Amino acid sequence: MTTTQLIQQIQNKKSFLCIGLDVDLQKIPSHLLTLEDPIFEFNKAIIDATHDLCVSYKPNMAFYEAHGLKGWTSLQKTINYINENYPEIFTIADAKRGDIGNTSTMYAKAFLEDLNFDSVTVAPYMGKDSVEPFLAFENKHTILLALTSNEGAFDFQTQNVNHEALYQKVIKTSKTWKNSQNLMYVVGATKAEYFAEIRKIVPDSFLLVPGVGAQGGSLSEVCKYGMNEAVGLLINSSRAIIYASNGADFAEKAREEALLLQQEMEGILKINL
Amino acid sequence: MTTTQLIQQIQNKKSFLCIGLDVDLQKIPSHLLTLEDPIFEFNKAIIDATHDLCVSYKPNMAFYEAHGLKGWTSLQKTINYINENYPEIFTIADAKRGDIGNTSTMYAKAFLEDLNFDSVTVAPYMGKDSVEPFLAFENKHTILLALTSNEGAFDFQTQNVNHEALYQKVIKTSKTWKNSQNLMYVVGATKAEYFAEIRKIVPDSFLLVPGVGAQGGSLSEVCKYGMNEAVGLLINSSRAIIYASNGADFAEKAREEALLLQQEMEGILKINL
Repeated sequence: MTTTQLIQQIQNKKSFLCIGLDVDLQKIPSHLLTLEDPIFEFNKAIIDATHDLCVSYKPNMAFYEAHGLKGWTSLQKTINYINENYPEIFTIADAKRGDIGNTSTMYAKAFLEDLNFDSVTVAPYMGKDSVEPFLAFENKHTILLALTSNEGAFDFQTQNVNHEALYQKVIKTSKTWKNSQNLMYVVGATKAEYFAEIRKIVPDSFLLVPGVGAQGGSLSEVCKYGMNEAVGLLINSSRAIIYASNGADFAEKAREEALLLQQEMEGILKINL
Repeated sequence: MTTTQLIQQIQNKKSFLCIGLDVDLQKIPSHLLTLEDPIFEFNKAIIDATHDLCVSYKPNMAFYEAHGLKGWTSLQKTINYINENYPEIFTIADAKRGDIGNTSTMYAKAFLEDLNFDSVTVAPYMGKDSVEPFLAFENKHTILLALTSNEGAFDFQTQNVNHEALYQKVIKTSKTWKNSQNLMYVVGATKAEYFAEIRKIVPDSFLLVPGVGAQGGSLSEVCKYGMNEAVGLLINSSRAIIYASNGADFAEKAREEALLLQQEMEGILKINL
């Protein structure tokens, strides 16, 4: 998917919501557990109930790998289901990979080619040659960890490296890499005050923003400092939407939660754009 | 596996060799490709031919994930084969994972519990709460990326953070984390001169050292600066061993290459310990 198509989708749906599919068997409705593939059935119901309110789905790889072969099957069925039924959706493999060049190439092929996700999250610690293999895929996107939403972000990401924070150095350096136009960045909603600083470095890039909801970030604060003329934000919510209910009405309740966020976003878009 | 058991194995085998199982279908002998599971058959032959010369195997997750369900099956069969037939071997899931706490917990369970690896490689960028879930498993080991063997290591890892390099800060900080006794570190062989500095911070920890062979690092240089009284090194070689031949004699040739390294290690151990 091109960035232009993503922006068009945001305008059509009046939403920049990404729904995280972090599916935990201990949290989904128990009536699904008797089915052959509870994770896929859960995802399918959530996707069918929310696809017109969000622009992106983000399965978190850990929650699928934790179930080995069965989990990998659920993941394949989920991405195929989205691509076949809702091809306008921007899909994110939340994998946080990154390794030496030939290994990163294998990961990139796995997520961007074989599974056919539109994008994948990547960790920056190993530098240029660990990220560029992901950037080589046309009309695919690499979402680089910059400033994450967890407490541990302060251990290294905000530390000073030659008069700037490490996360700033990561973003600046990444702009010099080959095919850097395919980069987006993860910036946690729990650190809204940092968005203004980040927008000085990457005014045009899309930012994937976790941490709204369960982790305590504020949507309006993030938009105030992080939005650009093309919106430039994908706001992720996982648990608050997909676990809104664990009864038979789980998909309906997920839709209600997604709708609340979409309406808040529509209001923000009206004022700002 | 306890660290004491690993050290005992090193003493018994007079080897601190780790063999990387980075299996690429385009590089393995073509006669294997007609079998039902070429990757597992390749690994099985390599393992049977080299298990007495090495103390560790390190499957690289990317090379398995790249084949989806089939790759995951090959991985499961490989780790089960090692655990059942050569339980003394220290197994490493080279996964380079790391995410917010509940996600890292899922990854840790997948690799350390379900697949039953002895250890897993983890990226430090997201800090304490992204690594501690891996450290919580008793007699399992978390191998934290410190200073990697690739060119991109100079982008961030060697940058100065308050008068020390980022990789030094990562190692020092990680020592303050809960269950830090379960930590080992990745330090690339291509940067032998850094080992002395690292040994000042972690004199007793095991270091996993990639980059000998294909990437150009020198075994004797690494040992000169990196070895401690309990050896404290696992030297990884992947391509130079497993792709020594792509004919019918691939396992035999892999053994010859592994034997050369084991003998060099035996010589170093005689002089140093």
